[in-house]
Order: sequence, then C-alpha cells, then structure tokens
Amino acid sequence: MRNAPDSILATFSNRREHYLQLLYELLRIPSISNEPEHAGDMRRAALWLQRTLQDAGMKRAEIYETGGHPAVYAEWIGPGEGRPTLLVYGHYDVQPAGDAARWLSPPFGPQVRDGNLYARGASDDKGQLFAAIAAAAASLEATSHLPINLKFLFEGEEEQASPNLASFVEKHRELLAADVAFIADYAMFDEQTPVIIYGFRGILSVEITIFGPDHVLHSGIHGGAVDNPLNVLVSMLGQLRDPATRRVLIPGFYDQVRALDARERRLLEEGPLAEVTRMQAGVPILAGEEGYTTIEWVTVRPTLDIHGIRGGYVGPGQQTIIPEQATAKLSMRLVPDQEPQEIASLLENRLRRLTPPTVRLDYRVLEKVPPVVVDFTAPIFNAAGQAFEQGFGATPIFARSGGTLPIVGVLNDVLGIPVVATGFGLPDDNWHAPNEKLALSHFYRAVETMIHFFHALREH
Amino acid sequence: MRNAPDSILATFSNRREHYLQLLYELLRIPSISNEPEHAGDMRRAALWLQRTLQDAGMKRAEIYETGGHPAVYAEWIGPGEGRPTLLVYGHYDVQPAGDAARWLSPPFGPQVRDGNLYARGASDDKGQLFAAIAAAAASLEATSHLPINLKFLFEGEEEQASPNLASFVEKHRELLAADVAFIADYAMFDEQTPVIIYGFRGILSVEITIFGPDHVLHSGIHGGAVDNPLNVLVSMLGQLRDPATRRVLIPGFYDQVRALDARERRLLEEGPLAEVTRMQAGVPILAGEEGYTTIEWVTVRPTLDIHGIRGGYVGPGQQTIIPEQATAKLSMRLVPDQEPQEIASLLENRLRRLTPPTVRLDYRVLEKVPPVVVDFTAPIFNAAGQAFEQGFGATPIFARSGGTLPIVGVLNDVLGIPVVATGFGLPDDNWHAPNEKLALSHFYRAVETMIHFFHALREH
Repeated sequence: MRNAPDSILATFSNRREHYLQLLYELLRIPSISNEPEHAGDMRRAALWLQRTLQDAGMKRAEIYETGGHPAVYAEWIGPGEGRPTLLVYGHYDVQPAGDAARWLSPPFGPQVRDGNLYARGASDDKGQLFAAIAAAAASLEATSHLPINLKFLFEGEEEQASPNLASFVEKHRELLAADVAFIADYAMFDEQTPVIIYGFRGILSVEITIFGPDHVLHSGIHGGAVDNPLNVLVSMLGQLRDPATRRVLIPGFYDQVRALDARERRLLEEGPLAEVTRMQAGVPILAGEEGYTTIEWVTVRPTLDIHGIRGGYVGPGQQTIIPEQATAKLSMRLVPDQEPQEIASLLENRLRRLTPPTVRLDYRVLEKVPPVVVDFTAPIFNAAGQAFEQGFGATPIFARSGGTLPIVGVLNDVLGIPVVATGFGLPDDNWHAPNEKLALSHFYRAVETMIHFFHALREH
Repeated sequence: MRNAPDSILATFSNRREHYLQLLYELLRIPSISNEPEHAGDMRRAALWLQRTLQDAGMKRAEIYETGGHPAVYAEWIGPGEGRPTLLVYGHYDVQPAGDAARWLSPPFGPQVRDGNLYARGASDDKGQLFAAIAAAAASLEATSHLPINLKFLFEGEEEQASPNLASFVEKHRELLAADVAFIADYAMFDEQTPVIIYGFRGILSVEITIFGPDHVLHSGIHGGAVDNPLNVLVSMLGQLRDPATRRVLIPGFYDQVRALDARERRLLEEGPLAEVTRMQAGVPILAGEEGYTTIEWVTVRPTLDIHGIRGGYVGPGQQTIIPEQATAKLSMRLVPDQEPQEIASLLENRLRRLTPPTVRLDYRVLEKVPPVVVDFTAPIFNAAGQAFEQGFGATPIFARSGGTLPIVGVLNDVLGIPVVATGFGLPDDNWHAPNEKLALSHFYRAVETMIHFFHALREH
C-alpha cells in the first residue's frame, strides 16, 4: 500500500478555504429538479460543474442532454494500461427547500455555524460530489497527474428517481466504461464509523386521486347520502396497512421478499441502532413491522409511507364541505426480489377492489426503481476501506441502506462493474428537510479520503 | 284573510330595480366571518345594514357588539297592542369564496346571467335577509306603516356556527321579545315547492392533529421504523366509519338517536328525492347508512364527514418524506337527542384509544350546536303557508333539514317562541361553493311573500 503523496495533502490543506468558496458557489444555485421553474438553475449548475471540472485540470468536461435535466461528464485518462479506471457518480440536483420559515439561514445562502455548513444540498449531494472534484483538483495541482484513470458522471435527476439515467448509461456504455464505480451519496453511521452500502431498497411511488361529486357540496344538505372523497380515501389507505402489526395488507406483497443468507444476517447486528434511530427521528418510541428488529425495519424490510394528502378545506376555522376530490402521494420501499412493476399492479388491484362504485379512482405511478444488492467481495471494497482508514481513521462497516439510489443498480447491471456506495455525511444532516448541513470537518476528511482512495485503487 | 294592499305590491313592482341595486351594494362587501383579514368588511356590512334599515323607515336601527362580529338590530313598533310582534333573523356573513378560478364572475362582483344573480351570499343569506328588508321598506313607502310589530336581528357569525348568538339573545331577551320568529336561510325543495323546516341537525365540528417525529424524516432512512403521522391519521379516521354499512363506528354514538313518531314518519316520504339529490350532487350513485332512505340520510340520521386533510408534501412530483404532523378537519351532523358535548367526549375517547403510543393526538372542538325540532302546529306556520301560496302560488311542505341553524334552537329555547325556518333559494344555488346564485324571480317573489306574510300574521 502506498500513501497518497504528502504534497497533495499539503496542497489541499493550504487551499481548503479556496475549495470551500467554490462549494459555496455550487450551493448558491437552487438546482431543484422537481420544480419546473428551476430548469434554468439546473442548467446553470451543470455549466458551473463543467467549468469547474475544466479548471480542476480534467482533460475533458462536457454537458450531455438526457431528455430531462442535463448530465455532466468529465475524464482524466492518462496513466496508461494497467491502471484501473474509476467512475465517480454524484448528483447536482437537490430537493425543494420546503418551509422557508423553518430554515435558520437561507437554503441557498450557505452559512457556517458551529462547524457545520448549512445549505440545501450541503450533504445531499453537492458537498459530497464536490469532495471528489476537490480531491482530483488538489492531486492535479500538486503533481499534474492522477494515479488512476478517472471519470465523473454527475446527473441532475436523482431527486426525481433518475428517470433518464438507465437509458443514458446504456447509450453511453463506451464513454462510461470503467473497472469500478464509486458513489458518495449517503451518511456515515456516526462520526467515528464510515459505512459502505452494498444494497439499496427500491421504490414504487404513486399518486392516487378519488373523484366524487362534480362540485363541492354542503355537508348539511348532502351529508349522509353522498360518499365523501376524503372519507373514501382514508378508508382505502387505512386498509393498506395493519396498524397493529404494521404489515402491508396487499395480497402477494411479501411473496418475492428474499430471505437473508447467513452472511448477511451476521451483518445485521442490532447494536445501539434502535436508540440512535429513535433519537435521530425525535420520536418517543420506534415502531415497525411485527417480528423484525430496527435494522431490519430500515434496511431489508419493505415499507409503505404516505408522503402527502391534499383535499378539502384546510384553512382557519371550518368549511363544512364535501370536497369533489382528494389526493394522496405515497411510496413503498421495496427489497430483493420485489419487482416494482409487479408491486404496482398488486397495489392498483388492491385499490380498485377497495374503491366503492360511488367514486372514481385515478392511479398514477410516479417512480419505479428496483432494489439492488452488490457483491461486496470485489477488491474495490478493500481499497475504499483503506482510504477511509487513512482519511477518517476508522474501518467502515458494511450495511444495506433503506434508501433508493437508482444509479447503483444501473451501473451494476448495465456496465457490469462493482459499485462502492458510501458517504461522508452524518445521519442528522437533515436530508430533504429544513436546515440541511454537512460538518466542515467531514468535508475536509472526505477530500482527503478521496485522495487516498485514488492511490489505494491503483494497488488493487 | 286580508290580502296585502295592492299598493304595496305595486310600489315594490315599480321599484324592483332600486332594491336590486341596493342588494348589489351588500353583495359587494366581502363579509367573510371566518377570515380575520375581513373583520373590517364585517363592520362595513353591519354599518350598511344599519343605514339601509334606517332608510327603509325602521324606527330604530342599531349595531350591537357581541364579542365577535357585530349584530344589527332594528325595529318598527307601531300598531299597538293586540298586533303580533315578528322577529326576523338573518345573517350577513358569508363563506370564503374558495377557488377564485372556478367562479365565472367575481364572487364579490354581483352579476346577472340567465335570470340568476351570481355572488357569494346571493342565496346564503344576504339575498334572503334583504328580501325581508325590502318588504318592510316597500310597505312603509306605500302605506307609512306595517300591519304588525317588526324586529330584525342580523348576525355576522352564522358561518362560524354563531358562537356568540346564544349569549347575545339571552342578554337581550327584552329587546328581542316577540310572539313568533321567522328565518329565511334555506332552499325550496324545487322551483314549485316551498319548504318549511321544523327541525335541524346539530353539529360537532373538530380538528385533530397527529404529531410524530420532531422534524421531517426521509422515508428511505427512517421508513419502516417510525410511525408516519399520515399513515396513523388515515388509519384512525378510517376506523371511525364502516365503509360498507356507512355507519359511524363510535361506541354509544347512536344511543340517544330518537325514533321518529308516526306523524313525522308520514312527512318522510321518499318521492323523487333520491334522483333529484343524485343529480344535484353530480354523483353516479348515492350511498348512505345501511337500512335508511335518502330523505332519512340527509335529514334525520347523523353523519360523519371529513372536510379537509393537510399533511406532508402535496406539490408536483414526490418528496419521499415522513411528515412531522398531519391534520384533519371533520364534523358530525347530529340529530335529536344527541348531545354535542357527549358526542365530543365519545369521539375523543375513540380517537385516544386508536392513537398509538408513538404519536401525540391533539383534539380540538371547533363548533358544537345541538339539534332542534320545533312544534310545527303553531299558528305562525299557517300564516307562513298562506304567504307562500300568495307569493309563490304553492303550498309549502314541512320537512326537517340536514343542515344546522343555531338560531332556531336559541330562539325556540331562550325566547320560548315558535320559529318558522324557510327559504327562497333553490337546492342548486351552490351554497359554500363557487358560483353561488339566487334566481332573480325568487328574490322578487320572496319580497312579495314577505309582504303577504306580514299581513297574514296579523290575522293569526
């Protein structure tokens, strides 16, 4: 094992403030992929990445159209045959800021408080993808070369479940060809414990609307004789889950859930997770599917969560109406070997059976991503482990994630290469919530870890 | 029986356009009692009524403070002993306009189309209360006196379930003392069939909020281990009603529901109501409590309707969050002898039993109005029947309403006088909905009916 040249680490150490200021620039762009009015900001962010990658010394940096928001590709090919090629993935799109009043500083006005950098995207995923750019830039500044061939792929649709990513990767197989892939879009277990994720839950995300009367009715006049879309909606949704066992009540839902093998079962030690999770969530008691542990609830068991309901009058006081319609957004996290399309059909069948003839059901699938489990015995996992030991002074644990990262399945299946998915954030970084943050110390260590990773990879 | 002097009817006929313009003035004031920013408009409307009642020739017209929005009182006491005193009630507050885009003309910009006057409050209740004012004004203009003693009480909080009305009437018993009371705040059965309402459902209106995690969570990270307030809310609400029998599932809820006597049962003939109701509601099929008919569903049986749910993310696309909280507004229409306070306790007990220990329930009562049934054999009911025969050429039917009119119970109980509750609107007047209207012909006939009513009452 060869350590990363001290000159690179020294260069980065001297230029930390410069890189932080660069990251601020990226965080200031409200690249919210879900909101059409931010399409221009999406392109601004892509152009910013292209220019910054060029400035970093990458030999090529280009914007690719995808059918949706643009992707950014860059490469530094140099060391010649025999050196591995690493593909680094990240996403430059972010979630909406949500309730602006809940942010202590503007979501798109990065601010450091108590050693944390606050901004939407600080941790998910701008701060993490930029750590890889900064590692390459510092390496190239210090030594004018990299120990490996390096490719970057940054997409702008991850928060929309990457609708164009699979076809993009398929279309650009040769461009993206690599030996291994690396993704930093996750959190460490805690400040001392990095995590390498070898499995992700899939997702089936749907929106359902119940249409009732053709206009809003007065509940004094028609109440009792007309099925109220909100009454119907809560009844239907309430029948999708058993509130006592917290199991999903859809016939066939669990049929394809793969049993864990002994090796995986060993990795699922509960440890202090229950109490840590309870405190992170800010709830008095955790609760999940009967017969399973906390770590199983959040990683290897499927779920059903309602994300939003809209219907009727929700202002001050009361309007005694029967609304015309009511809408719910919900998703199910899926685990191997649940097929999103099959689950979508099972859910739709169940909902149609629950729909009374007095109303009309509209059922729309919003997102479908299959679950994935990567073979974590590949050598790249050792290289990543070494890099973390050098950058964070700690050996990573291997775990499965409860979240969904479509790129992992795409790279694993389409390019046929092992994918290390990990992260430099912390579990309390407030992803998708107000006051998202990234610890500054983690940002600096992330850059150092990536510098070490490039060198460790050369050895494997 | 003495007909109303032809001179009064002629005076009104000649001055119809003048009265219509006056009504426009009232409809232009957005007197929305539920929205605090319209408090000034509430007072403007009260002042407008005071001035208009003075101009109409009432001997006294005053604004009374109530603790909430002001009430307007006016009187013409003249004919001396032996003549009955009539108290006419109406409300000058209106519901919010709702979705402005759905109105074909501005909600507070009255417009006539196809013989209908469109505006918020045209039918509920400004147009109807103004018909009584116009009848008094025309009578005084034509003959300089009224055949009876007349008192007006107009409140500004009916759409908030009249929180200050009972105490106001109690405090001003002597001021309001009368032999009979009259309320026009309802619809006719159809264009040919006036209705006199001798019973109203009560209401218990509540808002419940489920508080979960202390911040918004990511469903990939915590989904499966944390009870989602929206999942909990729909499960709880779904268990309040049986979707098949459509009965309320609250122990004790039906215990105090009074069985109908034979006389009432005769009044509950189904007739064409089912199809009329279905078409008015714009639904493919009506549906109500198992074992009852349409007219029972909408008048003598209690209900539970959810009026609004607010929680989580409801914008475009999906945010895979577990929200911190979720809120529902709902109400139950109550029938004799259900006590609102007792039902409120039964509901709260039921909800608390359904609340898992993972979340916190906040339960707030918004409105409580008891149901009421008036003895409809009093002579005033004959006078009202005569007036309708003269004004509309049709004999009214007697019915119970599914709606809630707190004033009926208050006048019946506190002043101890019979109350005729009726209306000049039509069932498709879009109360509480966009494009509220009143047929112009009904407005004119309403004024004529009131002129006849004053005279008919003198005879009884």
